[in-house]
Amino acid sequence: MLHIFLLFSLIFTSTNVLAQDFCVANTASGIVTPSGYPCIMEANVTSDDFAFSGLGAPGNTSNIISAAVTPAFVGQYPAVNGLGLSAARLDLAPGGVIPMHTHPGANELLYVVHGHITCGFISSANKVYLKTLKRGDVMVFPQGLLHFQINAAGKRPSLAIVTFSSPNPGLQILDFALFANDLPSSLLEKSTFLDDAQVKKLKGVLGGTG
Amino acid sequence: MLHIFLLFSLIFTSTNVLAQDFCVANTASGIVTPSGYPCIMEANVTSDDFAFSGLGAPGNTSNIISAAVTPAFVGQYPAVNGLGLSAARLDLAPGGVIPMHTHPGANELLYVVHGHITCGFISSANKVYLKTLKRGDVMVFPQGLLHFQINAAGKRPSLAIVTFSSPNPGLQILDFALFANDLPSSLLEKSTFLDDAQVKKLKGVLGGTG
Amino acid sequence: MLHIFLLFSLIFTSTNVLAQDFCVANTASGIVTPSGYPCIMEANVTSDDFAFSGLGAPGNTSNIISAAVTPAFVGQYPAVNGLGLSAARLDLAPGGVIPMHTHPGANELLYVVHGHITCGFISSANKVYLKTLKRGDVMVFPQGLLHFQINAAGKRPSLAIVTFSSPNPGLQILDFALFANDLPSSLLEKSTFLDDAQVKKLKGVLGGTG
Amino acid sequence: MLHIFLLFSLIFTSTNVLAQDFCVANTASGIVTPSGYPCIMEANVTSDDFAFSGLGAPGNTSNIISAAVTPAFVGQYPAVNGLGLSAARLDLAPGGVIPMHTHPGANELLYVVHGHITCGFISSANKVYLKTLKRGDVMVFPQGLLHFQINAAGKRPSLAIVTFSSPNPGLQILDFALFANDLPSSLLEKSTFLDDAQVKKLKGVLGGTG
Amino acid sequence: MLHIFLLFSLIFTSTNVLAQDFCVANTASGIVTPSGYPCIMEANVTSDDFAFSGLGAPGNTSNIISAAVTPAFVGQYPAVNGLGLSAARLDLAPGGVIPMHTHPGANELLYVVHGHITCGFISSANKVYLKTLKRGDVMVFPQGLLHFQINAAGKRPSLAIVTFSSPNPGLQILDFALFANDLPSSLLEKSTFLDDAQVKKLKGVLGGTG
Amino acid sequence: MLHIFLLFSLIFTSTNVLAQDFCVANTASGIVTPSGYPCIMEANVTSDDFAFSGLGAPGNTSNIISAAVTPAFVGQYPAVNGLGLSAARLDLAPGGVIPMHTHPGANELLYVVHGHITCGFISSANKVYLKTLKRGDVMVFPQGLLHFQINAAGKRPSLAIVTFSSPNPGLQILDFALFANDLPSSLLEKSTFLDDAQVKKLKGVLGGTG
Repeated sequence: MLHIFLLFSLIFTSTNVLAQDFCVANTASGIVTPSGYPCIMEANVTSDDFAFSGLGAPGNTSNIISAAVTPAFVGQYPAVNGLGLSAARLDLAPGGVIPMHTHPGANELLYVVHGHITCGFISSANKVYLKTLKRGDVMVFPQGLLHFQINAAGKRPSLAIVTFSSPNPGLQILDFALFANDLPSSLLEKSTFLDDAQVKKLKGVLGGTG
Repeated sequence: MLHIFLLFSLIFTSTNVLAQDFCVANTASGIVTPSGYPCIMEANVTSDDFAFSGLGAPGNTSNIISAAVTPAFVGQYPAVNGLGLSAARLDLAPGGVIPMHTHPGANELLYVVHGHITCGFISSANKVYLKTLKRGDVMVFPQGLLHFQINAAGKRPSLAIVTFSSPNPGLQILDFALFANDLPSSLLEKSTFLDDAQVKKLKGVLGGTG
Repeated sequence: MLHIFLLFSLIFTSTNVLAQDFCVANTASGIVTPSGYPCIMEANVTSDDFAFSGLGAPGNTSNIISAAVTPAFVGQYPAVNGLGLSAARLDLAPGGVIPMHTHPGANELLYVVHGHITCGFISSANKVYLKTLKRGDVMVFPQGLLHFQINAAGKRPSLAIVTFSSPNPGLQILDFALFANDLPSSLLEKSTFLDDAQVKKLKGVLGGTG
Repeated sequence: MLHIFLLFSLIFTSTNVLAQDFCVANTASGIVTPSGYPCIMEANVTSDDFAFSGLGAPGNTSNIISAAVTPAFVGQYPAVNGLGLSAARLDLAPGGVIPMHTHPGANELLYVVHGHITCGFISSANKVYLKTLKRGDVMVFPQGLLHFQINAAGKRPSLAIVTFSSPNPGLQILDFALFANDLPSSLLEKSTFLDDAQVKKLKGVLGGTG
Repeated sequence: MLHIFLLFSLIFTSTNVLAQDFCVANTASGIVTPSGYPCIMEANVTSDDFAFSGLGAPGNTSNIISAAVTPAFVGQYPAVNGLGLSAARLDLAPGGVIPMHTHPGANELLYVVHGHITCGFISSANKVYLKTLKRGDVMVFPQGLLHFQINAAGKRPSLAIVTFSSPNPGLQILDFALFANDLPSSLLEKSTFLDDAQVKKLKGVLGGTG
Repeated sequence: MLHIFLLFSLIFTSTNVLAQDFCVANTASGIVTPSGYPCIMEANVTSDDFAFSGLGAPGNTSNIISAAVTPAFVGQYPAVNGLGLSAARLDLAPGGVIPMHTHPGANELLYVVHGHITCGFISSANKVYLKTLKRGDVMVFPQGLLHFQINAAGKRPSLAIVTFSSPNPGLQILDFALFANDLPSSLLEKSTFLDDAQVKKLKGVLGGTG
């Protein structure tokens, strides 16, 4: 029966072709395409490429939002390249908030590891979907819609793991998009109806100019 | 040579199968799936289904934004069902603005039919891409990113035709998403860092509660 | 400014069209298509549709594998329809094992909530990727490849949350596929090189015939 | 170990959900969507649904083109629904020709079962790719490009099996598209530069009007 | 609140990863993949990359077809890479015609900027869909189907903007595909049923050989 | 009319852009992405790239399984890159068997060129679909599901051509995945319920260790 082995070996390993069961990203190649990064050859891939321990440690929530986001996107975790999946860890101290944001490139599924988290998103029809989740609950946030997570009533820290339907979901945080760049205040105010004082105040805090 | 006709007719028309070159939406079926609406049978499709005249008339810009959006999405224009395309007409009176918004489900390509339009979008990296377009210019706005269009310097009305990479791109207008529903003000303020007075003022204008 | 509200309401709510930001499954419709289930109209969708509490309770591991799988696929959790995501909960008592299996329709990302789990998968090149994960670690399992999870050394129960790149990933457990149906033993033995005694023994345990 | 069986049965068969490993078309439902037909429930699917014998008999080549096409598209072979594949049988008597045509919805792979077939296609760059194939050879024809097959030099019948990258590839035969309908001759001549006499002659043969 | 900025900056800009909200084509890289060109790094992208003025000037219609096509495909307009969209400008002088052609790789949506244009396409069922459009009208042409545009009755020039569901839709003009290359006349005549005189005449005009 | 030719040439060939009707793989580039290999420039592509004669010769069935698989995947046949199709040839001597296996990345369609072949696959619901096919019959095997082919009753060799819905379908042969690598026997036995003697025996034959 050894012949089976030889026969198939001959046929299937004599070709220098990636099986492409997977495509661990070569992020050092300097190349990215619309479908993702080039693959590392399987001969150079090890078990360590598929496992990732970067979500094991709590993020530092000693900041103004009392929260932290730790991503495992393709940039941090090259194994998800081409797999239509990625992840992140959300730490929320009591009162902590992941501010209003969107993921332009992916749907999101959130799982509460411990604590309570109040989650909300808003649809194209301007309808609010709001829910306070407890340990073990999950919730989905459709692609491109504004959403937020708050440890509103919590007296203890909360932890959530979120996964995305893309290796590179993107993240547009509303306040940073509006107030942390050089978008001229006149255009910003005309397009958002926010008052000049409000705009100036938040630009001041977030380092915006214009 | 008539036999060719008969032969192929026999083979290809004796089957009661949609060719599915296209799939004009049966929007009256009460069914929608993730891939779109069910198709009208080709026998019932006419030239009039493929043409659409609803973008021919100017939108009414006698309103507070001095602008109007007229969609030709799958709901208005059933022929685009399944084709990965739709369109809309943007009318901007002098000073008119299409407020800050996103399309959660599609990329956008804008073409200026006449006038000048200042267009901007903001990337996940919080970088602003801003450009004043003139007649004949085009610009793309990637999926899910905040963007706006203003007839800023114009003394004349401007007209743009936009097309989308989906029959149903969605539209989330920032002010409506934030201020025109029942999202509790406390959550809104915590997640956006906007002042209570600002929130209350815009909720008052746009009919928001909570 | 109320006019903005009226203007856009007029345009965008006068059409009886799903925004299709999402497509919560109508699993009672009796219809499934290659892209998933028909959508419930947004007017009938509530926050409760997006949240799911079925992964909160431990699965019953008082069984021969000392393990349990609790799915949140589209059948259990209709909100994931069309979103390219689903989830499941894996409970492994000490010594528990999720037997060798594949998901024909999705890639998988596993997150260890607590405990230790030894995970392995085998590529098309017959290479084994094996790793013992601890709390907070993640690992990916590419679509269609044989893999397993074991609480091998553990003295305490382990819990993992897995997510998939499809609302309906499928699950083919090797032993059930081989030994729990009426596949004739002669064909099974010829195609797997397993001994007749081995086949008969496992068919006996798992209820297979033929 | 019987408990395994019961455990998993409980979890995975108590839900009335299609596994959707496959989606055999319910072509009698009167519904088609952009992703294909609704699925027959797996409980009603049998081995006979997956096998298809309609390509076993030679097509009738006693016609003017001395050729026949026998399709196994989703209309004839419902099992390919949602699978991204379909097939057809090409019979070419000596001198037979499958006239110039395109498949608007799929790439094609041709395999010569016996005989010789001269195959050609033309790219968007107007370059001709031409090859005479013998028994056992394969050739691909990219989506939407004009191509043809001729048993040019053959003294014996030729047989090919073609497969497509879609369950419903479509088929637009050039002569039928131009001359077998009511497209006004004036428009046809202006848009093709064909002479009026040529147009009239072929319309006469193929039943065209206008 | 400055800390927010620092926190997120730390997390999200310390990785040398493209956000991939978009993927402006590096057309000078010498690399193209099935998903498109490699991306320029966002740090090197400017507003000018997203805007394109090449469709602003009329094409030269002083030619035998009295018409001109000006493309904004990914080759001319690198910003559309990976976005599932591109555009072109059609100029038709009175009597001008865009000859019968297909786009093998995309659906098309046409908008009439000014003038009248008679548009037609033919389905796989050989049915003709024909419509004379006026300013502001739109029409769709499904992927891979033969279609044409004529300024038939017009006494004034007509202008249309077309958009496609791909950055690189391809273009196969029927007469060029048939008569402007070295496809042997004998094969061409056998596969199209055109007369030898007709073939020779058009080959003469269009530079074909064989 | 020569002007037409010049006009379009000017527009469409002055750009150094691949038409990307197809993307023949440059397998020597050292680059593979999730969407496939980089393309050879069309100027360097010839008819010989599209045709492939490697399936014309019988595989050598003088081995323990009395069978042979000859692939025409993207590694052997670069023209299928990006086309969503590939092929293989199955030779089965009398009694020959293609052992139980899956294709993690593609659906499969099998056509019997000559002889009889007994084919079976097993669904996620553990249901067996089994059929003995004769010359001219076809059968589909959905992605990722265990299946096999046997020339069970045959006194003559059988030949089948299979096509796949991917240029790189992958191939995981059950016995090789389980017994031809270094997966520790203890883990293998715990996850498959196979007896130690059975595991050791097949590891011995197939070269497995651990």
